[in-house]
Amino acid sequence: MAGALFGSLLTLSTFGESHGPAMGGILAGCPAGVTLDFDAINFELSRRKPGQSAIVTQRKEPDGVKFLSGIYQGVTTGTPIGFIVENANQKSEDYDHLKSVYRPSHADYTYEKKYGHRDHRGGGRASARETVSWVVAGAIAKQIIPQVKISAYVSAVGPHEYSGEVDEQALKQVEQNVLRAPDLIWAKEMEEFIKSVRKEGDTVGGIISCHVDGVPLGWGSPVFEKLHASLGKAMLTINAVKGFEYGSGFDGAKMRGSAHNDLYQTDGQTRTNFSGGIQGGISNGAPIYFRVAFKPVATLMQAQEVLDKDGQVKTQAGKGRHDPCVVPRAVPIVEAMTALVLADAYLMDRTTKI
Amino acid sequence: MAGALFGSLLTLSTFGESHGPAMGGILAGCPAGVTLDFDAINFELSRRKPGQSAIVTQRKEPDGVKFLSGIYQGVTTGTPIGFIVENANQKSEDYDHLKSVYRPSHADYTYEKKYGHRDHRGGGRASARETVSWVVAGAIAKQIIPQVKISAYVSAVGPHEYSGEVDEQALKQVEQNVLRAPDLIWAKEMEEFIKSVRKEGDTVGGIISCHVDGVPLGWGSPVFEKLHASLGKAMLTINAVKGFEYGSGFDGAKMRGSAHNDLYQTDGQTRTNFSGGIQGGISNGAPIYFRVAFKPVATLMQAQEVLDKDGQVKTQAGKGRHDPCVVPRAVPIVEAMTALVLADAYLMDRTTKI
Amino acid sequence: MAGALFGSLLTLSTFGESHGPAMGGILAGCPAGVTLDFDAINFELSRRKPGQSAIVTQRKEPDGVKFLSGIYQGVTTGTPIGFIVENANQKSEDYDHLKSVYRPSHADYTYEKKYGHRDHRGGGRASARETVSWVVAGAIAKQIIPQVKISAYVSAVGPHEYSGEVDEQALKQVEQNVLRAPDLIWAKEMEEFIKSVRKEGDTVGGIISCHVDGVPLGWGSPVFEKLHASLGKAMLTINAVKGFEYGSGFDGAKMRGSAHNDLYQTDGQTRTNFSGGIQGGISNGAPIYFRVAFKPVATLMQAQEVLDKDGQVKTQAGKGRHDPCVVPRAVPIVEAMTALVLADAYLMDRTTKI
Amino acid sequence: MAGALFGSLLTLSTFGESHGPAMGGILAGCPAGVTLDFDAINFELSRRKPGQSAIVTQRKEPDGVKFLSGIYQGVTTGTPIGFIVENANQKSEDYDHLKSVYRPSHADYTYEKKYGHRDHRGGGRASARETVSWVVAGAIAKQIIPQVKISAYVSAVGPHEYSGEVDEQALKQVEQNVLRAPDLIWAKEMEEFIKSVRKEGDTVGGIISCHVDGVPLGWGSPVFEKLHASLGKAMLTINAVKGFEYGSGFDGAKMRGSAHNDLYQTDGQTRTNFSGGIQGGISNGAPIYFRVAFKPVATLMQAQEVLDKDGQVKTQAGKGRHDPCVVPRAVPIVEAMTALVLADAYLMDRTTKI
Repeated sequence: MAGALFGSLLTLSTFGESHGPAMGGILAGCPAGVTLDFDAINFELSRRKPGQSAIVTQRKEPDGVKFLSGIYQGVTTGTPIGFIVENANQKSEDYDHLKSVYRPSHADYTYEKKYGHRDHRGGGRASARETVSWVVAGAIAKQIIPQVKISAYVSAVGPHEYSGEVDEQALKQVEQNVLRAPDLIWAKEMEEFIKSVRKEGDTVGGIISCHVDGVPLGWGSPVFEKLHASLGKAMLTINAVKGFEYGSGFDGAKMRGSAHNDLYQTDGQTRTNFSGGIQGGISNGAPIYFRVAFKPVATLMQAQEVLDKDGQVKTQAGKGRHDPCVVPRAVPIVEAMTALVLADAYLMDRTTKI
Repeated sequence: MAGALFGSLLTLSTFGESHGPAMGGILAGCPAGVTLDFDAINFELSRRKPGQSAIVTQRKEPDGVKFLSGIYQGVTTGTPIGFIVENANQKSEDYDHLKSVYRPSHADYTYEKKYGHRDHRGGGRASARETVSWVVAGAIAKQIIPQVKISAYVSAVGPHEYSGEVDEQALKQVEQNVLRAPDLIWAKEMEEFIKSVRKEGDTVGGIISCHVDGVPLGWGSPVFEKLHASLGKAMLTINAVKGFEYGSGFDGAKMRGSAHNDLYQTDGQTRTNFSGGIQGGISNGAPIYFRVAFKPVATLMQAQEVLDKDGQVKTQAGKGRHDPCVVPRAVPIVEAMTALVLADAYLMDRTTKI
Repeated sequence: MAGALFGSLLTLSTFGESHGPAMGGILAGCPAGVTLDFDAINFELSRRKPGQSAIVTQRKEPDGVKFLSGIYQGVTTGTPIGFIVENANQKSEDYDHLKSVYRPSHADYTYEKKYGHRDHRGGGRASARETVSWVVAGAIAKQIIPQVKISAYVSAVGPHEYSGEVDEQALKQVEQNVLRAPDLIWAKEMEEFIKSVRKEGDTVGGIISCHVDGVPLGWGSPVFEKLHASLGKAMLTINAVKGFEYGSGFDGAKMRGSAHNDLYQTDGQTRTNFSGGIQGGISNGAPIYFRVAFKPVATLMQAQEVLDKDGQVKTQAGKGRHDPCVVPRAVPIVEAMTALVLADAYLMDRTTKI
Repeated sequence: MAGALFGSLLTLSTFGESHGPAMGGILAGCPAGVTLDFDAINFELSRRKPGQSAIVTQRKEPDGVKFLSGIYQGVTTGTPIGFIVENANQKSEDYDHLKSVYRPSHADYTYEKKYGHRDHRGGGRASARETVSWVVAGAIAKQIIPQVKISAYVSAVGPHEYSGEVDEQALKQVEQNVLRAPDLIWAKEMEEFIKSVRKEGDTVGGIISCHVDGVPLGWGSPVFEKLHASLGKAMLTINAVKGFEYGSGFDGAKMRGSAHNDLYQTDGQTRTNFSGGIQGGISNGAPIYFRVAFKPVATLMQAQEVLDKDGQVKTQAGKGRHDPCVVPRAVPIVEAMTALVLADAYLMDRTTKI
């Protein structure tokens, strides 16, 4: 497929470089008859938008999505939904210093060597601006499966992991703080921490956790499209992601079977949920949860070594507007990709039985 | 689709229930002209085989693969390679006690509810016997890309993580101990630990690390088929896997960008490799490495609660022959899935430039 | 992909060379809960079998299909249905004379040049024996959509076209004559004609028509998976097929719109059916019908020129057992491929509306 | 796939309704490094454009394509090429009379019943305006395989078939007459014929032939992606197509094998080309040729019966601007779809041998 398609029945194709005229995509396979809530779509876009607070990039992107097809009188028609998001406010000159250098831990070098020809401005296809199309598509996907509630939140910033419990109450606080954490006090601390990192011209990584309620028993597939494998691939598709775990995750590897097994109640539900809501690749009706690790943003405002095209190592500081910590803005992206996977699994499950 | 196909250009379709007559698959897209080393294929099968040592299941499976097509005079013809591995030595009666119960943390319940009709013997499609077909296909995939060296090994058993360095010398020891660890002394300790777990009728999880040398710059894709996302999905497809991380992984989330960035040498290579050999979804020529978390095997020999079809919770001990710790036998499976992903990426990369 | 997969949701992967140990395939995406009629499957296989009469090849093939998975207690489980059909009664020595020559209008030359390595015996993947797997899969597909009645029949042999009307009564005669024609008298004439052709060591082409009742309104897709385009591809996939037309077909190109348009009755049905039951790529509830042109079999018993590997043209007569006219045996193959397309379209249609 | 994707490695996704803001698509898998000739792309668009002459629709469409990604400094980057073609000059009021009626032999009825929700203006996805995206993509595909020369032309209009020989000289005349025929005199006659049909408020069908030079031996696949099957599906995907035949086609069905077989010369070329340049699904180096049958346009300017939503049959004449005969404008569409299939086959063939 040449890496341009995401999904099996609900498919997203995307295009766009951050410094071309527009990003965009085609969401195909969306069932007919979904009355779209456009405010909800715009809300998701606003959550992803740069410049929301002091701890994210100050770049401005209007990010108005323009739907071009597949919707008539506000309702999906079952035909492909084409959309574009124009790239305004590109400061291409911000990227002139990158014409002839490869930044460390960026895709500059690999892309140029693979393709032999590359748009150096803004990272080309490697730009996280690509995710704007995912957020549009994910916001529609959420509306295909309204019974499902997807709640992602920041659970670690650098070495600081949030240790409190995350219940329904806590999840409600996520949109009330710029960090998108489930706790206002910890969020404030982390905001200060990120500001201090930024002041040093440095960046820091973090972790996003995601909690999903309302997935009924039966979504997913036993072998090559296990639900958690599709979720894992979706998360690892997000820029800067280095790891994925679901249910007990890496900690589960330390456990004994006698402690890890989720014993049944008489109603078929389980008393614990180390399985993370998925057994044998198929949802079991319990909440699905997983964690996603993000590396620190590679573009630093402090000076660091870069490689130029002549094979010289020299020193250069980043320019432009970049996030000191990516996780607050990645929360809606995690949700969008989750929604795409789940809506696809929902449609696929419709074909299971005669 | 429907979850029956793995890969894009080099594709593996599989079938089989552990208690049906045979497992098998079709490996399509294998280029013509590969002179197959059948001993190498059999060696991989023997590595995966149950009954190799006291710390794995004592089930006997002859596991002779029968190739049915796509090979003429020992050389691949470019047409689909069909193969079967017969299921001998099934003790279906070992599974009679499972007819009417759902074991905790197994796929019994989800499969039956999803499909409404299920072969209870040996877990049906959820059986890890499925992986025998992956090992066959992976052993061929390795021969498509002989320049690539894939070395997986056990790096943690339960709470015990191996802390030594793993260099080329250490990797050579992996096939010299039943644990498949890179250190004979630690392997011996872990063997004893697993035996003690088994004696309690319990099981324990673990971690497999994988180190890949020889992948040239340029394999993978920038957006929806990032090389690490494909590897992650492949690993999460393996039974009992709960997590995947590559390069710096979850630890990378704790780091600062100034420490995490892999600075270039003048030859284009990097001084560190927190990126794990992949940047922007595309291999950069450095070694690729990742870690895979396995939960403890769910079937216990000690008594535990199960749910029966009438909604009663009762106590039952496992029967049959099961692994107390799955990681030693999963090592060749991790390698096989890695090989399938990489050989596919290799073929796809051939279509990149005009 | 690589040409090894047929279908979108109901997918068939196949493998096998006629002179290897077995043909076989994997039918994936078959819904759970189909109680299979194995006699019906065997009946389709017997229809395809060589040696049924004097006008088809006298080769004997037992053609017993062995199901290896995906069926439990006679009911589909929703998991991949693996199956093989062993190749007995191969007379490889019959093909020794082909080792170093390329027969005209066979795939010998193109395959050898494309792949550089070829099993010369029995045509390799080009052998029509491949269709045995399609017939198995198609026989299952028919049972997924029991409301649909697919009736193919021979409507022309060489220059002789059947000119009578083909109603329900006529279709019932198809299995009562060796030609599989809708008229016993014409069938007898054609049988004599084919015998006379065979006596000359020659072969002759023909046409199969297919009539499908019971497809409800709504199967198919507006743009890239138009129902008739999928049917056309399926038919053109059958060995020796040179053309496909549906509804008015090539004759429709000669018509005026005023005569060709299918005017509606008040119940939404149309008074004529030049559309062939499909409008805009989607079934409209009327019978679907199409015609498929088969070229004459390329293997002649009379002497003809062949090219040898040294670039010499020499004269050689065919050996072995070949059909003088392929259409009688291709009737069940046309039906099988039609069933696969329609069952796939049925499953896809289930995902259309919210 | 939900019918939104065309191709395997070189893939085209499209979107758009003729009365929405824009048509468009994403061409993915185009290799990096193709220096695009934009004039050639615009030339193809101008060939497809309505209003070119008196015998095609007088609708005006500016049809300027806007590329949004995948091209940097005029050269393809290997990333998805996104593009849109805006829909100007829509006269939606021209379609008001269609709000509540189903026109005979249109997709109105099937789409509305399948999806339950439909944009009645201009036929929605059924509009032939969709083909503007195919022409853009096809014009790029032609540049991926510059060694291949694709020449389509009108070979029949209604009952009038062109009977002259079509050699290189004749092909040069195709762009010199509004009919796109290989003979200026016959073209003039047909132009008059189409004008007379239009004067009656009627329409007429026709046939397009396509001749392809320069495809080397080896493109295509033996079983499920036979080159002619892919070409056939591509042609049957074009609006109004009712039939496809290649090489000897339906006439081949009337022939004897002794006459039909293409005997070899000592250089591996054949003396005849009834095979149509493809043997066993794979190109043999000889010219590829095929014919495509188009039904008469269903929209008539004369009054005819339509069905309204209340189940009443009433009389209505077509409005707006429609083609009296579709074949002249379909010539570049046939070429575009052919180019997409062949460029895809070219890329796939790169992965054939080790």
